[in-house]
Amino acid sequence: MFKFRNIGIAGLGLIGGSLALEVKRRGIACRVTGFSRRRSTLEKAKTGGIIDQYYLNFEKGLGDLDLLVIATPIRVMNDYFAKVRRNNPSLLVTDAASVKDGVVRDAEAILGKNSNFVGSHPMAGSEKSGIDAVRENLFEGRFVVITPSRHTKKGNLAKIRDFWRSLGAIPVMMSPQEHDRLIALTSHLPHAVVFSLVSLIEKAGRNNERLFSCVGSGFLDTTRIGKSNPELWAEIFMANRKNLIHWITEFEKKLSVMKRMLKEGNYEQLAGRLDALKKIREELDGKRKDI
Amino acid sequence: MFKFRNIGIAGLGLIGGSLALEVKRRGIACRVTGFSRRRSTLEKAKTGGIIDQYYLNFEKGLGDLDLLVIATPIRVMNDYFAKVRRNNPSLLVTDAASVKDGVVRDAEAILGKNSNFVGSHPMAGSEKSGIDAVRENLFEGRFVVITPSRHTKKGNLAKIRDFWRSLGAIPVMMSPQEHDRLIALTSHLPHAVVFSLVSLIEKAGRNNERLFSCVGSGFLDTTRIGKSNPELWAEIFMANRKNLIHWITEFEKKLSVMKRMLKEGNYEQLAGRLDALKKIREELDGKRKDI
Repeated sequence: MFKFRNIGIAGLGLIGGSLALEVKRRGIACRVTGFSRRRSTLEKAKTGGIIDQYYLNFEKGLGDLDLLVIATPIRVMNDYFAKVRRNNPSLLVTDAASVKDGVVRDAEAILGKNSNFVGSHPMAGSEKSGIDAVRENLFEGRFVVITPSRHTKKGNLAKIRDFWRSLGAIPVMMSPQEHDRLIALTSHLPHAVVFSLVSLIEKAGRNNERLFSCVGSGFLDTTRIGKSNPELWAEIFMANRKNLIHWITEFEKKLSVMKRMLKEGNYEQLAGRLDALKKIREELDGKRKDI
Repeated sequence: MFKFRNIGIAGLGLIGGSLALEVKRRGIACRVTGFSRRRSTLEKAKTGGIIDQYYLNFEKGLGDLDLLVIATPIRVMNDYFAKVRRNNPSLLVTDAASVKDGVVRDAEAILGKNSNFVGSHPMAGSEKSGIDAVRENLFEGRFVVITPSRHTKKGNLAKIRDFWRSLGAIPVMMSPQEHDRLIALTSHLPHAVVFSLVSLIEKAGRNNERLFSCVGSGFLDTTRIGKSNPELWAEIFMANRKNLIHWITEFEKKLSVMKRMLKEGNYEQLAGRLDALKKIREELDGKRKDI
């Protein structure tokens, strides 16, 4: 029944914590080992029953694992790769980072091209973060992008794909470069746009009660992702800034088309355009319901 | 108990229909009279019990009303004002349009400055529209902006304010010009931005399945308002295009600040900025919970 003997999860935030919970709930491993810089997080995970044991000293617990999922902030991932190389270099390793090209390159450079790393990105983020945001079935019906490189071994790819499937996720394969280009459009650009919208509220006056009375559910839903973890997002933006800058430039062009239509004042043209865009947006809902 | 004898509601979409339903539920009028261009909508409203009677011929039912709420598309409002002037020129009239300066000017020009019009905008819109979107308690706890002009009579203003209060809404007063300036930022700009985001998806390939697998709940929530009624929004954009163009230009400046920060690549600076923006966005939730 168990697919793994001992799965290690480094970083017990929304993604890592929900992963631990789900591995336990679904009986995917005999044992789940948690790693975190914070003892309070580890204690909470142990008490909550989502991990069986934990280590503050990462190097100590590595030797006994047969799978490690790194779900930490990007900036500490290379430390983890170096520790894996020193303590258990043939360990099967995946991750959950929102950028893949740099992460996969770093993993292969540090672990060696003959190592057993496969990059993953589950589409299960939220504006909520930390162990208190952990929830059941976070991955059910969600896509997970798996990003093999030319060094990825076929057997490892199959194991990681099956691991995500057993959590309820839908694996999709693409290169790390394609992932970063697409995710910059579908996730990183919307965050940059929303942060810019929120900064206009700052400019218009934080203490303007009449302004607040004009804020409806449309604005709040559109800018919900503006409540996301700032350190996490600053890291993501930095790690994917070339693609993000590209899409901001493309977005600026689309916005200037909109502005020109407004200046021209042709109602029929504008209504026709908005109708076409509504249909594209509705198609996206359809894609999700197909799952 | 009844505040009004016979309230007429022109336009039985999300706003007008929900208004009729709420007037009935709360016993605000002895009778609710519906007006619409579509017989099928009127039949549905009558059968559903949200109106007591209806007229396809607007002029016929006007004489007996003591309040008329115009919740139609903007482009037909002037026809309604002209019919009120011909058939019941002293009738108390309000509306629910998302733009106010042009509407209030037109109402006063057509009805005469001595008439009894008071402009309203309930913050209760949605991407859903039409009579099938009608729901209970749509106005409960929502702001409604009431926009008196220098011609508005104090007694009428009090009546319209009390009318919205009796529906559960929270009235806020501001000039039509201030309303249009603020709402362009909090509602019309986000729509323009979201439509531009969706048009990038069109460009990136509608049949790109790998692109769809990178669309998560963040993108879907952020662009939910992209499913809004295109004719309604083309009208709103046109009616408030001067303010909207102003805010698009301001938004472009904020986005270029973001782009410059990305190019400079200073993580600390970016993380600090995103942290400040997160706090501003969270304050907006707080304002809603204060209600």
